[in-house]
Amino acid sequence: MAGNRVVVYQGPGEVSVESIDYPKLELPDDVVTGTGVKRSAPHGVILKVVSTNICGSDQHMVRGRTTAPVGQTLGHEITGEVIEMGDDVLFLNQGDIVSVPFNIACGRCEKCDERQTGVCLNVNPARPGAAYGYVDMGGWIGGQADYVFVPFADFNCLRFPDRDQALEKIKDLTMLSDILPTGYHGAYTAGVTTGSTVYVAGAGPVGLAAATSAQLLGASVVIVGDMIEERLAQARSFGCETINLAEPGELNEKIADILGEPEVDAAVDAVGFEAVGSGPDAGEQPAAVLNDIMNAAKVGAGLGIPGLYVTGDPGGVDEEAQIGSLRVRLGLGWAKSHRFQTGQCPVKRYNRGLMKAILADRVPIARNVNAQVISLDDAPEGYQQFDRGAAKKFVIDPHGMLKA
Amino acid sequence: MAGNRVVVYQGPGEVSVESIDYPKLELPDDVVTGTGVKRSAPHGVILKVVSTNICGSDQHMVRGRTTAPVGQTLGHEITGEVIEMGDDVLFLNQGDIVSVPFNIACGRCEKCDERQTGVCLNVNPARPGAAYGYVDMGGWIGGQADYVFVPFADFNCLRFPDRDQALEKIKDLTMLSDILPTGYHGAYTAGVTTGSTVYVAGAGPVGLAAATSAQLLGASVVIVGDMIEERLAQARSFGCETINLAEPGELNEKIADILGEPEVDAAVDAVGFEAVGSGPDAGEQPAAVLNDIMNAAKVGAGLGIPGLYVTGDPGGVDEEAQIGSLRVRLGLGWAKSHRFQTGQCPVKRYNRGLMKAILADRVPIARNVNAQVISLDDAPEGYQQFDRGAAKKFVIDPHGMLKA
Amino acid sequence: MAGNRVVVYQGPGEVSVESIDYPKLELPDDVVTGTGVKRSAPHGVILKVVSTNICGSDQHMVRGRTTAPVGQTLGHEITGEVIEMGDDVLFLNQGDIVSVPFNIACGRCEKCDERQTGVCLNVNPARPGAAYGYVDMGGWIGGQADYVFVPFADFNCLRFPDRDQALEKIKDLTMLSDILPTGYHGAYTAGVTTGSTVYVAGAGPVGLAAATSAQLLGASVVIVGDMIEERLAQARSFGCETINLAEPGELNEKIADILGEPEVDAAVDAVGFEAVGSGPDAGEQPAAVLNDIMNAAKVGAGLGIPGLYVTGDPGGVDEEAQIGSLRVRLGLGWAKSHRFQTGQCPVKRYNRGLMKAILADRVPIARNVNAQVISLDDAPEGYQQFDRGAAKKFVIDPHGMLKA
Amino acid sequence: MAGNRVVVYQGPGEVSVESIDYPKLELPDDVVTGTGVKRSAPHGVILKVVSTNICGSDQHMVRGRTTAPVGQTLGHEITGEVIEMGDDVLFLNQGDIVSVPFNIACGRCEKCDERQTGVCLNVNPARPGAAYGYVDMGGWIGGQADYVFVPFADFNCLRFPDRDQALEKIKDLTMLSDILPTGYHGAYTAGVTTGSTVYVAGAGPVGLAAATSAQLLGASVVIVGDMIEERLAQARSFGCETINLAEPGELNEKIADILGEPEVDAAVDAVGFEAVGSGPDAGEQPAAVLNDIMNAAKVGAGLGIPGLYVTGDPGGVDEEAQIGSLRVRLGLGWAKSHRFQTGQCPVKRYNRGLMKAILADRVPIARNVNAQVISLDDAPEGYQQFDRGAAKKFVIDPHGMLKA
Repeated sequence: MAGNRVVVYQGPGEVSVESIDYPKLELPDDVVTGTGVKRSAPHGVILKVVSTNICGSDQHMVRGRTTAPVGQTLGHEITGEVIEMGDDVLFLNQGDIVSVPFNIACGRCEKCDERQTGVCLNVNPARPGAAYGYVDMGGWIGGQADYVFVPFADFNCLRFPDRDQALEKIKDLTMLSDILPTGYHGAYTAGVTTGSTVYVAGAGPVGLAAATSAQLLGASVVIVGDMIEERLAQARSFGCETINLAEPGELNEKIADILGEPEVDAAVDAVGFEAVGSGPDAGEQPAAVLNDIMNAAKVGAGLGIPGLYVTGDPGGVDEEAQIGSLRVRLGLGWAKSHRFQTGQCPVKRYNRGLMKAILADRVPIARNVNAQVISLDDAPEGYQQFDRGAAKKFVIDPHGMLKA
Repeated sequence: MAGNRVVVYQGPGEVSVESIDYPKLELPDDVVTGTGVKRSAPHGVILKVVSTNICGSDQHMVRGRTTAPVGQTLGHEITGEVIEMGDDVLFLNQGDIVSVPFNIACGRCEKCDERQTGVCLNVNPARPGAAYGYVDMGGWIGGQADYVFVPFADFNCLRFPDRDQALEKIKDLTMLSDILPTGYHGAYTAGVTTGSTVYVAGAGPVGLAAATSAQLLGASVVIVGDMIEERLAQARSFGCETINLAEPGELNEKIADILGEPEVDAAVDAVGFEAVGSGPDAGEQPAAVLNDIMNAAKVGAGLGIPGLYVTGDPGGVDEEAQIGSLRVRLGLGWAKSHRFQTGQCPVKRYNRGLMKAILADRVPIARNVNAQVISLDDAPEGYQQFDRGAAKKFVIDPHGMLKA
Repeated sequence: MAGNRVVVYQGPGEVSVESIDYPKLELPDDVVTGTGVKRSAPHGVILKVVSTNICGSDQHMVRGRTTAPVGQTLGHEITGEVIEMGDDVLFLNQGDIVSVPFNIACGRCEKCDERQTGVCLNVNPARPGAAYGYVDMGGWIGGQADYVFVPFADFNCLRFPDRDQALEKIKDLTMLSDILPTGYHGAYTAGVTTGSTVYVAGAGPVGLAAATSAQLLGASVVIVGDMIEERLAQARSFGCETINLAEPGELNEKIADILGEPEVDAAVDAVGFEAVGSGPDAGEQPAAVLNDIMNAAKVGAGLGIPGLYVTGDPGGVDEEAQIGSLRVRLGLGWAKSHRFQTGQCPVKRYNRGLMKAILADRVPIARNVNAQVISLDDAPEGYQQFDRGAAKKFVIDPHGMLKA
Repeated sequence: MAGNRVVVYQGPGEVSVESIDYPKLELPDDVVTGTGVKRSAPHGVILKVVSTNICGSDQHMVRGRTTAPVGQTLGHEITGEVIEMGDDVLFLNQGDIVSVPFNIACGRCEKCDERQTGVCLNVNPARPGAAYGYVDMGGWIGGQADYVFVPFADFNCLRFPDRDQALEKIKDLTMLSDILPTGYHGAYTAGVTTGSTVYVAGAGPVGLAAATSAQLLGASVVIVGDMIEERLAQARSFGCETINLAEPGELNEKIADILGEPEVDAAVDAVGFEAVGSGPDAGEQPAAVLNDIMNAAKVGAGLGIPGLYVTGDPGGVDEEAQIGSLRVRLGLGWAKSHRFQTGQCPVKRYNRGLMKAILADRVPIARNVNAQVISLDDAPEGYQQFDRGAAKKFVIDPHGMLKA
């Protein structure tokens, strides 16, 4: 049994690839200590990682905007091959290729019953909800690695029906662990349906996934806003309209230029708390995007908010922002009877349907987010490019299993 | 045809009863001028007002917390008898007793199609949504009057099936024009269902209506929080648990004392922007209640927000508050995956079912909110008592049609 | 003002074009007599018919399978230009091009409040629900005509935003009055969503519209079954899989040949009571299609049933069938926990979103159903071709306003 | 460890109490053989049965209306104490009192993900869905016993928060394993909500549970129909209106006598396939109740159908009925745009909320269904009384743990 390489946070702006122990069928210390659940995990599997992506929310840690300690392992977007199974894994087989939702869930608590797997009660003593390789998310080892342990595997693993077909479409399927369902959650909870006009704030991978999902849900027009022209070009490449927020002008007027009316039926915040204000010289304004989507959306609209907002931000612009208290134009939202859906995407609600759509060639998500395959050793370089705003989604291929 | 008395705003803290013209079947100037719709209104009726209630949101105007001009007519909670009908009123008859939703709606626009009558597009040139006797709500004459004009009457009027039965239960039925559906909207959109534990912030009439509605929706335990002991006693009188927010201590601990756990399944903000902070000496903190309900609610919960938040508040605590921008603990809500429903209650979604429940003696709302019948001339005294926090809901009886 | 030509039923197998009076702003006798509503209709408009389609449900009448009397006017799929308006039509203008839902609704009753416009309570004394030019549906004059009266026009007419754009896309937009929303209703109420596998029984225009809608809703694979090869070829032309039911073999096996599993996630009955059994020599079996879709659908599935079932069928195969009592394999459906949605499509729930999707070039419905424009005088020939199973949807162009 | 008594089917009309082996943590042969899942069950628990009820669906077997073989063990309504746990049971403890849904589910398949636990894919090789002690339901041993094995226990067991409180309210809580959620499912899927008028066909325990649930959901008037006066008296005892179907007269007229209108907003079939026609001398008519509820319900209504319909009925009135093909008045349902929900109740969707409502004294279900505690040895006598139409729900108390 070989060792195990994994991407590790080394302080602001820096990650490296380190060797750690090969995983065991065991729960992490934090969970065992905090919840009293027994350590051995007959419900778990070891996966050989087939692909694992760098996520914008990893960047929050790497930019030093969280309390992640040096040594934090990274990676929560995992697709893998089952190579070892506990005694109570009944419905998987060795060799299966599976997608793993970034949110770890037990499948046995009240919230899992309600399909709220993003806030499972049994996997993180600090608060409901957990993830692989993330600060404050239960101490689970990250999946930007050669091998990774996945608990409650019958529940958490989405099995692809055919191994060869899966490997063929792996660059699309790898997006099922996080960004495609997350973008879809944003669009879906915003109420996007047949004929909707949609505004998506942010043209990073989640924003592009939200735009892709809005199209899949039947939107008539999808408008994507961002300040990086390269990302906007990516959005236009699959039929979106775009707004460059770095240019002067009111958002509603820019929308009107496209639609003939100043507001959209549904809006998505795919940016979160590291938002900057609109216009050429605006600095960081953590509620800027949320306030923008209220401006952009019609009365009675839904707002999907997959962009991350946090309860603690050491780098926040002021004391209030540092505890996640933001200047929200609530009066405006209320006057418009808006509905807001916040929180992590409960991936299991959506990943099976999206998988079926991908396998039927309905969702060119790899193309739309410009997936770029890199080796595990190149992960540090990938983090840097992504932080500079590259219009790419980096897919790490630890074992060289992906086609060029 | 006699004149018409109506309650009028005379400046901060003051209302009076004045004589105005008897209503015509005509749209108000603001609407005609702003939208170009023709003035004559064959779709409208004149109602003889049977009962009309003083509302907490009237108090925002009377306390000078809005831009309402001196001379603003008041009253949007109207129950009346049809005494005159336009040529295109087809499904009402003279003598019918009807409940009128406070939100005026055309029944013919996209938002009315979607049952979003609180943001109808055709009844207010300033913004979607209108109401009788309210600033910025389209210039419609108030209904704390002898007679009132109701447009689009076949759509807006909920006809009671039997006149005698209606007059018998009028103190309950009068709550259908606003506070009962508004409280119900809060509870319903918070996701209250069979077995839910619920926290309602605010024990004014809307809070008590939300608590009543939560019980009707099957809640197991309803907890009401307020700072006025008399109002809390009213909540206890129909089986609610209560928390006095003026007393020291953390809200979650107080909830745990009642439930054995620190959070509830669903929470309702029945206060709005004139919130004050918890604890003995806290001053006005416009987001205090909203932040409280995020604290109070479990992960994955819904938050119903019928309490009013405004886009302009001349008396706001700071410049941001004056434009409706509040310090919301969005990071907390996001971490908890909360869902927020803001905005006016679309009364027509709920009033028919609630009427049927009242007629079957399922909803003792008059008793629960402590309805007090007063004459139209006593309305100014009612406003004053209500402003001082009286645990009463004042029902004005312009024509002496109500039983003692 | 000229006369008015209209298509009229002349007995089994026969229709003709006749001259009748130019329409007035008046309700039909049946409605006035039966409900006591006044005759004059200030809420109505006269439309110059721009396009009006022949529908499969017209064929039920023309084949003599209903109690329609000789002289019944025909046509309920109407798109027109507003040329005359009553005094209470406020939000339309002369020259507007509008789509008219086939189900006539008042917009003022309890069922219209609930968006159940297919069973409006005020437009047909015989039963809830009405339509233009249809037996037992209220006595409203048919719209396969030069001009037609539309009541409650602000509510019933869907205005196209731009006249020129509308005329440009009229062959698609004309499908909004019935078959596109009807097919969509079938797919939507069957629960079709992202990734669904779908079986649509029937490749007539409604079946093809259901298949188109399933694609729009994100289905991964859509399978269409029929016995007419020409119609199946039409389904294949836009990416559907097909099953020829006239060929031997079990439906589940044929599905498995396509999908690799014998059942689908959702199924639609787009045939109705004139169903024939599967296989080469099966005769009419009115529940055959309904039973088929239960066979075809997985456990827990939804079944959308836009295909028409009637309470009286003079040509039914036996006495039970003649009163609409059919041999349904309810035990099978129950064992599978199926959910059934029957009834007319409430067009207004869907037509606006579908219009926006068409205007954004998202729904090539004219192409998918093979729309063929004919003159009003050629309507009798169109009826005959359609009855023989032509894979065409006939669009009548009374005034020569459509492009070739 | 002692032996284990269990109720066993001995042929039509006869049951006995027999000794079988004490349960092991093992799956039944049928499941192991049919699905290939391994026999040992680290996910399972052994329960000491605290209470276990006789169900109307047991009677279908005992009356010989199924293919149940002699020797079939009985009992699927189980409440028990955890006394032995497999290695992968993590969130239960010895001594916990738990309610067990009658439908066995794995918590790990696509249908369980969708909360469709009534049609779980992994617990019955014959078809989706399983139950304890029931023919064709997977071969699981019945729970009218001293001890019973429950698989996937973290998922299937609903833990009561406090043991003493649970034993105090056990006569109510015992109804959570089947009839209360089943009745609630009927009412809920029929669309019962605030103010609804409701017709429940059948005053057996499920019908009374549906009526109780309708009240809990806010119904204004609940009407229960049956032919046994003693059962109707039971329904009246908690505020229902009743109709004796054995008396002459039309159902719609009888409803009109109560409501003033001939139809209700929502209707529930709590009878199923052993229905008899209305009126004094009608014989068995398997679709009679389903057709009745279509008659009874308004246009646009939902119909909840928890009453059992089967795919094979050896005692059916004719060949068609014997394969579950019934004469359904589908034309009527279609004309009324009815929505039908069939199938087993997925108990886990409802049991937690109902538990919380019971613990808060909101649902006097034991009283409403007239719960009668008997010993295990008296079970055969209980079956006989129940079969004769006793207005009682028999609760078996194998270990004498229940209070008188």
